[in-house]
Amino acid sequence: MSNALVRDLLAEYGEATLTVIRDALERAARRDPVYGIAADYPLRGGRALRASTCIAAARAHGATLDTAVATAASLELLHSAFLVRDDVEDESEERRGRPALHRIHGIATAVNAGDALTVLGLAPLLENRTLLGTRVAFRVLEEAALMVRESVEGQALELRWRSDNALDLSDDDYLRLVLKKTAWYTTIYPLRVGALIGARGKVDVARFVRFGFFLGAAFQIQDDLLNLVGDPARYGKELNGDIAEGKRTLMLLHLLRVAAPAERARLAEVLRTPRAERRAEAIAWVRERMDHHGSIDRARRHAHALAGAALHEAPGAFAGARAGRDLRFLQSLPTWVLERR
Amino acid sequence: MSNALVRDLLAEYGEATLTVIRDALERAARRDPVYGIAADYPLRGGRALRASTCIAAARAHGATLDTAVATAASLELLHSAFLVRDDVEDESEERRGRPALHRIHGIATAVNAGDALTVLGLAPLLENRTLLGTRVAFRVLEEAALMVRESVEGQALELRWRSDNALDLSDDDYLRLVLKKTAWYTTIYPLRVGALIGARGKVDVARFVRFGFFLGAAFQIQDDLLNLVGDPARYGKELNGDIAEGKRTLMLLHLLRVAAPAERARLAEVLRTPRAERRAEAIAWVRERMDHHGSIDRARRHAHALAGAALHEAPGAFAGARAGRDLRFLQSLPTWVLERR
Repeated sequence: MSNALVRDLLAEYGEATLTVIRDALERAARRDPVYGIAADYPLRGGRALRASTCIAAARAHGATLDTAVATAASLELLHSAFLVRDDVEDESEERRGRPALHRIHGIATAVNAGDALTVLGLAPLLENRTLLGTRVAFRVLEEAALMVRESVEGQALELRWRSDNALDLSDDDYLRLVLKKTAWYTTIYPLRVGALIGARGKVDVARFVRFGFFLGAAFQIQDDLLNLVGDPARYGKELNGDIAEGKRTLMLLHLLRVAAPAERARLAEVLRTPRAERRAEAIAWVRERMDHHGSIDRARRHAHALAGAALHEAPGAFAGARAGRDLRFLQSLPTWVLERR
Repeated sequence: MSNALVRDLLAEYGEATLTVIRDALERAARRDPVYGIAADYPLRGGRALRASTCIAAARAHGATLDTAVATAASLELLHSAFLVRDDVEDESEERRGRPALHRIHGIATAVNAGDALTVLGLAPLLENRTLLGTRVAFRVLEEAALMVRESVEGQALELRWRSDNALDLSDDDYLRLVLKKTAWYTTIYPLRVGALIGARGKVDVARFVRFGFFLGAAFQIQDDLLNLVGDPARYGKELNGDIAEGKRTLMLLHLLRVAAPAERARLAEVLRTPRAERRAEAIAWVRERMDHHGSIDRARRHAHALAGAALHEAPGAFAGARAGRDLRFLQSLPTWVLERR
């Protein structure tokens, strides 16, 4: 059964990546204590979806684990760097079941530790020169720069929505955000650099954008749903935290569109309230209205449709890939993202 | 006279660099409004010392202005990215005569705009591939990664001194901080990448470390002195702002070492007080004690000695450089840093 394959491969590639990350963190921490602080998020654990996607794409295009794992480690470190800054910018309270980094060390040290994670995430991409040759290593760096750009612009868009208290946003607006803020670094970049490494630069990376976008969007909607309906012990962030942060999810945007005028006015008021003053009753009320108006079921159907679209795109995306376990893993991801808890 | 040459060349290379930066900012701002916010610091003006040093080093090693100006623009953009984050981390109030970015837009948007500046600063280094070839462009990227690492670790060290309220620090501690936090990106990196571009990779960049370190340290001490004794209209940051921030300058560290026990206890108390609660009288008292104990004159002598050491290192650093205006500019910098206001 394909979900077992996904779980096995996530565990295997995740462990291989974590070994490289642990080693890099330990060496760096001997150089400067800031890397000890920076080590927190990467060592909190996670499902290693991005690293595993990168390694599987590399292997499915002809690489060995050893030539791809450094780039996978880089990706997880850059991911942690984003999370540190996002948590500061979003005033998030928790991350992976523990307080957010700036709640432990203050904003100044957290922002600096985020930069330290960027430094650690860049290093393997430069060391790639020995592993992959200058030409392919340079291509991977170009992809990394594009990925960082998309992520930063995605975060900028979301911050604007929040600071403008944007209320009139469509599903398309949401999907545009998800393409930039989530899909590019969660699915599209791992597939692109994995394939580049595997095919030694001889691959048209544009073929991964549609599959990666649909998969990444299904993943993000599922993630947003887990924030509302997940098991708090397993989820790792505060439940309904997205509502507390005023995050524009597919569910919230639907609710804003279908709400009666009085409801909508109250929603606008709740969203306008600074996070620190937003009350638990107000959050619970928003959550209840989402149920009432079917916003949650609708988003679930949306995620299923996007996963279906990803499945539809898979043959085109992986036309150049070798049959085997890695390809089956990549093809199984759209189904897996819907079933994770 | 050499200072006129320095001023002319700073103006000329600064304008060339600013033209490239303006163009990049305008193109980016059409893509996303975050680049409009990010444009603030780079457009506030500055003396373009780093960009000019990079271009002069490139030309003195055989390059044209056109092959070096993109790297110089990258450097100024990455510099602005540091400043945005440093200002957040140090809770600085002003930058170049106007409010710090986070005081205009809030911390979340400022941190995001800092990332946008990093994105803009990386782009020319990737475009260098066409200009310099893959091999030299990759070497420049390696240098950029090293420079970012040194700067981040320097900032980490300074943040630790502040959060630990470190009081027992030597001149050597200060110089180690300055090597990492200031000299690497202000002098050493510009010289190294400039020479790499000029010599098409065929240069031993280690030769610039000593000259760059002495020059950078003289520059930083002079900068710290201007914060105490500068003309506020021309200086661009709040006068005595370093004392308000608890910044460990050569002057403060000397004062801490020579202060009588009662004075030292009061100093420790002032430095322990959170910035927002630090009172103007306390700051004025610290400033007056520096005068009383000769801390300021001593630092001025220190800066002169370091500039002298840089002059002493210049022949070795520039053994491979061509005679001419660019070389004279580089050789004149140690004298110039002492005389700027």
